[in-house]
Amino acid sequence: MACSCGYDHGATGADDSISVEEALGMALSLASRLDPETVPLQEALGLILAENLLAPDPLPPYPASVKDGYAVVSADGPGIYPIISEARAGDDAKNDSVQPGTVVYITTGGPVPDGADAVVQVEDTMLVEEGPSMLKRVHILIKSTKGQDIRPVGYDIQKGEKVLEKGVRLGAAEIGLLATIGVVLVKVFRRPRVAIFSTGDELVEPTEGTLGRGQIRDSNRAMLIAAAAQNQCIVLDLGIARDKSAELESKLEKAMVEEADVLISSGGVSMGDRDLVKPLLTERGKVHFSTVKMKPGKPFTFATVDKPLSKGTNKSRPLLVFGLPGNPVSSLVCFHLVAVPTIQYLSGWVNPALRRIQTRILQPLKLDPLRPEYHRATVSWTEDDGTGHAGFIAESTGHQISSRLLSMKSANVLLELPSANQTLPPGSVVSALVIGDIGSMPAGPSKVQSTTNSQIFSTQSARS
Amino acid sequence: MACSCGYDHGATGADDSISVEEALGMALSLASRLDPETVPLQEALGLILAENLLAPDPLPPYPASVKDGYAVVSADGPGIYPIISEARAGDDAKNDSVQPGTVVYITTGGPVPDGADAVVQVEDTMLVEEGPSMLKRVHILIKSTKGQDIRPVGYDIQKGEKVLEKGVRLGAAEIGLLATIGVVLVKVFRRPRVAIFSTGDELVEPTEGTLGRGQIRDSNRAMLIAAAAQNQCIVLDLGIARDKSAELESKLEKAMVEEADVLISSGGVSMGDRDLVKPLLTERGKVHFSTVKMKPGKPFTFATVDKPLSKGTNKSRPLLVFGLPGNPVSSLVCFHLVAVPTIQYLSGWVNPALRRIQTRILQPLKLDPLRPEYHRATVSWTEDDGTGHAGFIAESTGHQISSRLLSMKSANVLLELPSANQTLPPGSVVSALVIGDIGSMPAGPSKVQSTTNSQIFSTQSARS
Ligand SMILES: [Mg+2]
Ligand SMILES: [Mg+2]
Repeated sequence: MACSCGYDHGATGADDSISVEEALGMALSLASRLDPETVPLQEALGLILAENLLAPDPLPPYPASVKDGYAVVSADGPGIYPIISEARAGDDAKNDSVQPGTVVYITTGGPVPDGADAVVQVEDTMLVEEGPSMLKRVHILIKSTKGQDIRPVGYDIQKGEKVLEKGVRLGAAEIGLLATIGVVLVKVFRRPRVAIFSTGDELVEPTEGTLGRGQIRDSNRAMLIAAAAQNQCIVLDLGIARDKSAELESKLEKAMVEEADVLISSGGVSMGDRDLVKPLLTERGKVHFSTVKMKPGKPFTFATVDKPLSKGTNKSRPLLVFGLPGNPVSSLVCFHLVAVPTIQYLSGWVNPALRRIQTRILQPLKLDPLRPEYHRATVSWTEDDGTGHAGFIAESTGHQISSRLLSMKSANVLLELPSANQTLPPGSVVSALVIGDIGSMPAGPSKVQSTTNSQIFSTQSARS
Repeated sequence: MACSCGYDHGATGADDSISVEEALGMALSLASRLDPETVPLQEALGLILAENLLAPDPLPPYPASVKDGYAVVSADGPGIYPIISEARAGDDAKNDSVQPGTVVYITTGGPVPDGADAVVQVEDTMLVEEGPSMLKRVHILIKSTKGQDIRPVGYDIQKGEKVLEKGVRLGAAEIGLLATIGVVLVKVFRRPRVAIFSTGDELVEPTEGTLGRGQIRDSNRAMLIAAAAQNQCIVLDLGIARDKSAELESKLEKAMVEEADVLISSGGVSMGDRDLVKPLLTERGKVHFSTVKMKPGKPFTFATVDKPLSKGTNKSRPLLVFGLPGNPVSSLVCFHLVAVPTIQYLSGWVNPALRRIQTRILQPLKLDPLRPEYHRATVSWTEDDGTGHAGFIAESTGHQISSRLLSMKSANVLLELPSANQTLPPGSVVSALVIGDIGSMPAGPSKVQSTTNSQIFSTQSARS
């Protein structure tokens, strides 16, 4: 039946809702990896490597001392020997051949001279004082074994060894490995270009000190810009669109002109007569879904819009458009659940997905009878979650209405609560999707005490 | 006794080693929080808020509709009513007073007109068609209750409510909250300024294609710059210092001139006669420790150097100097264990520390008889770690020699292995410090199978 607002909502009817998993699968199936580009080493942090890299030379490139001490002929054994030369890190040591009965002073990382087959660390020696004109001598106190404290050529990295694979995410250690093998221009998947705008006649800029009646400040745009930046995107801020087709259309045009890969709007996807995002996308592209069975965030539109061919290419990838709901919590939750893995896929991630963990809950949680809920919570780690095992414990962020952005504050997981007529008791195990940095999660109690309430940390599981 | 290299190493003797915990405690005790500064909202992501922020106005600032539908007088009940006006989001709705027997069309977020006390969603109504000159009418199909689908003033945020506390880290949701309450200039703890250089006559720039004998590429500097950037630092790249006092001294001077808060070097802290970092720091400042009982990374110098008073201030905080070991693994591990929490403390973190978890190990791990070891591993999450409980499983990154940077590749934890004459069997539980983003950890097996080897996932614990 046609809706009373006068607009035929078509696919927004409840029967056309798809699950979050289906929505994500659809978005991923319509995304394609972005082209690799070459960036300087110092700009590659956090990006995904787009090629396999082999070591052009071995590491160490020469037999290297592991210690400060003396390069010796191991067969010589303990005794007093003349120090005929020095082989310091950075020296080429080409003239320092060690003959039996002599030693060479060597420092950590220094090249072991020809003839020597072991290093005796300085702690196992004693310098013997001599007059100024004579060679210094050292008392080697221990018997060394062949190869002792020497890293042979290629011990750490062999010449030709695969050091980094296509698909690896470049963290600090990987940046160090690139420098080691002399790769200072790195082929990575390029960062997605994500254009973001908010819709709504009620919105004013956050700079607005005094609100008129009917006005609220636009929080979604700053929030989604930050969330996209956290996901390594290049962000284009397209501002606020009023609830007019022409304004929405000009944002879409701008995203095209700026060669965005992804366009993200918030608001304008509900059932009101000025919710114009879906009609525009239906006209200009293809709407793949517009209602997702989830709480928060049911109205959520995803579409693709064909882009004109850019110069010099003969393939075109469509603009991916996420029409997020207007409520701030809904918009950020939908962004995490569907847009983030899609952005990861574009960016070259091998396994684009939010990571799932299991956690015990601290508070009782009432399930929604109709829709699976993504309940915002803050997990911390405890050595004993009440069962004698280490694990995560999740504290709810409180009242979960989708307009209450405080429920996203400090949230590092979304608890995946199934729909049911039931309340989960404290201690239940639920699965959760990681949306924050667990490495900076709050320090939890080392052990959870379950004293007065024996219900706490029962082992009932919500999903398994 | 004086060392055979001719230099009295003094505190570097094994007896003077301190534990990692003591080293960290010392660094933290000598650090002080950096001064707050005010930055634009879009630059505040990832930083720590330096003030409490209260809401200047309530949210919603007016009674707002939760749905698209009709604002009604709930006592009217089901029936056909004239639609006397529209109250859309962004309208001020001041002329739209609802009288009993009338309704007002309203959209999500729109201001509920005076007189109305409930909203009936559009799905529970049916539009009644009329001639063009008449008022439209709607059939309200259900009985509503007072307050239904209305968010009263202040429902999400009350006027004067504390929205964000000093010490909170600003993620996307927190940025959204700042925008909500109109804070576009944010008082945050400023980012630490961290100057970084490498030392060593053997080092050449990573751009060097062909290595001469005795040369290796400088990997530590690019790696530590990336690691500092990941920790929200402003990084000053000071290049490479040769193993000469004057070169080291000029790096120190440069760090002072550039008003660095932290200076990080790598190399030059071993027992060789050209390991000049400690002698310089002893002369110019105060060395607090120079040997830490740990594997990797035993030689590790920490010092403070007084800075000249900067203009306009009468307090001065010392430059914190971390003289990291030269081996790439040692330098990055020491950076994580001691420098990262210190940087977090400077940056205003309430609880500066790496987060500790417990994990089962996949491989047998031979303990070091003398020093506690920080074994690099990659944890993933599994629904069943072999004991019927969900948990982390840790895969070793392989051969752990401190020159082998490949052992840091993809490592997201440091396993805290105690020193003992023992090998931990697979399945042992060990504690681990998180050094990577667990939210992007590799997808683990959903369940760990223990088929052929019943030893796997015994419940022996290494530390408890
Ligand atoms: Mg709207
Ligand atoms: Mg050196």
